[in-house]
This record gives sequence, C-alpha cells and structure tokens, in this order.
Amino acid sequence: MEENDVRYATRLTAPDPFYLLAVGSTRHLLVSALEAARARKSCPAAILCTTAQLADDLPGASRTWERMVAVWIRRLGYARVDVGPYFPLGPVRALEKEGIDVHLSCLPPFPNRAIKTSREVRMLEQSQCAAVAAMRSALECIRRADVSRTGELKRQGRPLTSERIKEVIEETLLKHTCCATGTIVAIGPQGARPHEEGSGPLRTGQPVVIDIFPRNKSTGYWGDITRTVVRGPVSPEWKKIYRTVLGAQKKALSMVRPGVEFRAVQQAVETYFAAAGYPTDLSEPGRESGFIHSVGHGVGLDIHESPGLRNEPGFLAVGHVVTVEPGLYLPGRGGVRIEDTVVVTKTGCRLLAVYPKRLVL
Amino acid sequence: MEENDVRYATRLTAPDPFYLLAVGSTRHLLVSALEAARARKSCPAAILCTTAQLADDLPGASRTWERMVAVWIRRLGYARVDVGPYFPLGPVRALEKEGIDVHLSCLPPFPNRAIKTSREVRMLEQSQCAAVAAMRSALECIRRADVSRTGELKRQGRPLTSERIKEVIEETLLKHTCCATGTIVAIGPQGARPHEEGSGPLRTGQPVVIDIFPRNKSTGYWGDITRTVVRGPVSPEWKKIYRTVLGAQKKALSMVRPGVEFRAVQQAVETYFAAAGYPTDLSEPGRESGFIHSVGHGVGLDIHESPGLRNEPGFLAVGHVVTVEPGLYLPGRGGVRIEDTVVVTKTGCRLLAVYPKRLVL
Repeated sequence: MEENDVRYATRLTAPDPFYLLAVGSTRHLLVSALEAARARKSCPAAILCTTAQLADDLPGASRTWERMVAVWIRRLGYARVDVGPYFPLGPVRALEKEGIDVHLSCLPPFPNRAIKTSREVRMLEQSQCAAVAAMRSALECIRRADVSRTGELKRQGRPLTSERIKEVIEETLLKHTCCATGTIVAIGPQGARPHEEGSGPLRTGQPVVIDIFPRNKSTGYWGDITRTVVRGPVSPEWKKIYRTVLGAQKKALSMVRPGVEFRAVQQAVETYFAAAGYPTDLSEPGRESGFIHSVGHGVGLDIHESPGLRNEPGFLAVGHVVTVEPGLYLPGRGGVRIEDTVVVTKTGCRLLAVYPKRLVL
Repeated sequence: MEENDVRYATRLTAPDPFYLLAVGSTRHLLVSALEAARARKSCPAAILCTTAQLADDLPGASRTWERMVAVWIRRLGYARVDVGPYFPLGPVRALEKEGIDVHLSCLPPFPNRAIKTSREVRMLEQSQCAAVAAMRSALECIRRADVSRTGELKRQGRPLTSERIKEVIEETLLKHTCCATGTIVAIGPQGARPHEEGSGPLRTGQPVVIDIFPRNKSTGYWGDITRTVVRGPVSPEWKKIYRTVLGAQKKALSMVRPGVEFRAVQQAVETYFAAAGYPTDLSEPGRESGFIHSVGHGVGLDIHESPGLRNEPGFLAVGHVVTVEPGLYLPGRGGVRIEDTVVVTKTGCRLLAVYPKRLVL
C-alpha cells in the first residue's frame, strides 16, 4: 500500500490524514495543525505546511482535504505530479481542477525501499523474533495437550482448538509490542487452502499449518513464519510430504543470494516438487493441488512487498528481505507449508530468526 | 474508508483484493479463485465472478487487478460507474481505457450505514463492553499502585508507566477478541494534545487521559471510551475543570435524540464551556486551548464515520451511534476528556456500555 511508501519516506504516522510530495530528495509535507509537532519530530528534513497556512486561499466550507492538497501543490508551483495506483480519486480530481496534471505511475516511488538498511533489518529481526516466540508458545501448547481415547487434544479438560491456539499466539505477540490479524492455525483438511485461518478442535495425526505474521506496533515492520506440525502418530505419506517441502525450502534457501533471478527460485521449487512426485494442478478452481503459490514475498512495512520470489523479472540483491515458504496442498486432505524470513547477504542469505523444523511433536 | 462500505454491503473480508459493483440492491462481486468459497458464504445473494472466469479476455501478462476490474464491468455491460473519493486511481484509469465513464461521487454509497440495525448495535455493544473492561483494568492498575515519597506511582517496585498501562489495556482487549492501536494514556501536560498517545511514569496529582478504542477482530465494529483520572490529591482547579467537562457531557447527552441538528449539540457544548469560563482559542498553532475538537463522531465499521456531532448539516435519527466526548485542553498543563458511545433511541439515547466517571482514584 502506498501509505507505507509515505511512512517509509517520512517515518511519520498520524491519526489525521497527511500528504507527501517528494521532489528528488526534498520532502514536502502537508499536515493538520494538530500533527505539526509530530511531523517535525519524525521527519525533521521535511518542508512543512499546515492546513491552517492554507486557510487564506480556501473559504471554510470548501476546506476539504482534497481541495487543500490541490491548493498546496499549486502554491508550491508544480504543474504535474506522479501518483501510484492506490492514490485516491478524490484528490486527483481536485488537483485536475486546479490545472495540475496527475500522472499514474506504477513504478515504486522509492525503489530503495526493497533494500533494507541495517536499522530496518534490526526492526525486521525484532518482529521475526516475536513471531518465533509466538510459534514456540503455540507448539508448546499442542505438545503439552492431553489426548483423549478418541484422539482429541485437550487442555484443562476442554478441547484444544484453533481459536485457543490463536489466543496463545496473540498473547505472546502482545508482550513483544506486536499485533497480528489473520493468524492461521489450519487443522487437517483446512490446511489445503493457503488462506484458510482455521477453526475447531485439534486431533492427533492431523497436520496443523501455523502461519504467524505479526506487525510491530511502534516500528510498523512485519515478521512472518510458518510451521506445520502434527501431534502423535502420523502416516508415512504425510511424513514424505513434509520431507519434500523441507527439501524444497532447503533448495530455495540455498539459491537465495545476490544476482539470482527471482523466477529462477520459483522455477527450481516447481521442478523440485514435480520431480518428487507432486505436480501442480491449477485446473479445478477451488480444488487446486500441489504447489499453488509463489515461493516468497518481500517483507518490510508491508507484509507483502517487493521483491517477490516468483515468476517476475528482477534479481536478488544484498539487503532484500524475503520469505521462503514452499508448500504442498492436497484438496480435502490438508497441506504442509514451511516458511522462514531471510535477509540477502553478500554470499547468500541469513535467517532473521532461527526456529527448529520438526513435523511430529 | 470505502473498504468498510464494501464490508458493510457484503460482510466479506478477504486477504486478496476483491471488488463490489452495487446496482440498486444487486451486488456483483469480483474475487480471486482462492476467495470464491468465502465470498459465497459471506454474501450468498451476490452475483459472483472469479478472476479465473475473466482469463479468456486477458492474456497472462496483462492480468492485473486493474485490467480485470475493467474487463469485468465491461462484460457486465455498464458504461458508467460511480466511485467514492478513496477509490484508487489505478483501476479508474483502466476503466477509462475500456471506455467506462468513472464518476466521482462524494455521497455515501450506502447512506443507511449510519443507521445501525439491532444486530449491529449488539456488535457495537460487544466492542464497547471490551473497552469498558479494558478501562476497568487500567484504572485498577492506577488505583492499586504504590506511591513513593516523591509522588511516583510504583508497581512491584518499578515505576508505573503509560506504556505498562497500555499493555494492561491490550491484554484485556485480547481476551475480548479485540485489537487496539493508538490507545492513549496521556499524563499531565501530554493530555493537552488530544492525539498524544502518552509515555513515561505516572505521578500523583496529574490528570491522566485514557482513551481506548478497540476493534473486534471478528465483527470489525469498534468501541470508544475515554476517562480522565488522577491518583492522590488534586488541585481545586483540575476538580473544577473536570466538573465542567462532566457538565458539558451531561448537557450533550441530554440533547442527543432524533431530530436534533448535529451542529446544535456542538454549539451547545461550545456555549457551555465559554459560559463556564473556558473559551476556545485556536489562534496559536500547536498551542490551541479550550474545547478544540468536535463533540463526537459516528462509530461502526470505522472508528470515525458518519454522522459527526459537529458543525455540519443534518439531524440525529434513531439508530445513529455516536461518541459524546467533550474535553478541555490547557497547553503545557494537561487536559480532561470524558467520552461515552451512545445509540440514538426514539426518546433520547442509551449508553452502549456503562462505566462510572470519577476524577480521583
């Protein structure tokens, strides 16, 4: 989302709207009077304009944000601005009314955003450590559960559910100043759909896909980790699937280094799965099977950002932070996904946080 | 935000993008194949189109969301669409390329959204109860703190801070399936700026403004409550300010009923404060004093939505849900704000959740 481009370029977050005009390395900011102090602190280099300063040119009734943005840019003397695809139509039309040409640009406004600074890597590590701590507490919860004679997992006499494990995860994240929505604890067949958040009681023998992606509430940077685990006895088939996904992740991790094409990693994983006897079949909508998503995505102020480890042009570079998350999905039966987040180094890549991978708890 | 208009009209949330075209009471939905099952469940009346169904008209490389939206609407046979001010420019330009006229409409697409159904009121009550529970745990924490000889509040031997109280608040909200960011625990002078989130240790004698606005993670509906409290002795001046704000809130609450103009409530509170000796002064940017914001705002799927209890045209109606939150702000010294959320009934209004108001703990 473009709001994170603005946050990247200004380090400013505020409850009220505000606008950034970047001209080369110069940052112009339009903020409400209430946010001026905060803006000065977050982005001391910016040339600040408060909405109060525009009041002369705008009678009270027309003092909407759309109009204020237009007057502000006209006063700065620009006849054309580039905006991204998510820029809202309201201010576009107001700018056009002021005679300013609005050009849609689909290029990233700050291409360097994909290359993380060491400060950003530290913040990403912090979020990834929070994700790992939450994963640890979730797996501990499954490991310690009692098992009924019929194979149901129990905690303090009550069924252990996906919902309860998500609570445990979120309690842990909170202690790390992180917030998460959309956490996945998908049980058995639920795990066959990568976006399914999961619900209901856990049983022995069923793989559980746990995908945790917290955002640090202060820094705004995300972490992302997935493990697949099973409590109790598990069929040789699931063991084989797990080993295959683990092998695919190892293969992908071994390829992540500067100069490698994004699509090369994607294709290598696809080839690996096909050779292992798990071809991908996307022909039946809603029942896609095999390896049905991309190997990974960039992580930063957005949970999904550039670059993508998938069939797209471009090359890995030092400072890229990406997930590596191959998975296999069997409609109606379940799935296995294993995900870590790495930073690209001069010679390869480094996990932002380390956590063991083992199917059987 | 318009995404909540879409949520309101479809009850659908999904990690992937999706688009709604509303024609009268007919809902057309464009979703990714991955989200089709979820869309059918959330919005069974909708006429569904999956991106896979558009594949014929779009070669792989041009299969962006922008293009897909345009092809979808052209296939449905519409030559013109209305979009709101937040609608993104990317799909607008793609629609225009397909010969579809995009009209910017600043009218709410679903005006009934401001009138809550009894089901929505129940969900808002649930979030407001979570907010009250969190307020209770925060005030309990301040009440039980030890006091050092120099007037610092302590908890288990360590300074009791704004940060710690926010943790307590968020732990409580989590137990109620709610999430909050931006929670305010503003101490002494920090409370003079309504948006200041606050930080650092608490002391006796300083008013603390606590503003909690949680969102239920399942329903998406918000709650909103503010209390101002002080531990230990407090000056007569702050007592007087507190009584004045409490009186202003009572005045406003007594006015909230169907048929009353929004601006009448705002003006009554402004008059009340001026008569009590607290005039508003907005002339010095960053040092505004007195009653420097509006009386209240609508609450629903957005934390700030229509209607606003401020200087805007329109009348209260049964089913409106609004905050009533007068406050007084003294630059460099502190602030007092008292806020409850109410639903407008046939004869007046009813608090969504009840919590006592007392300055001194």
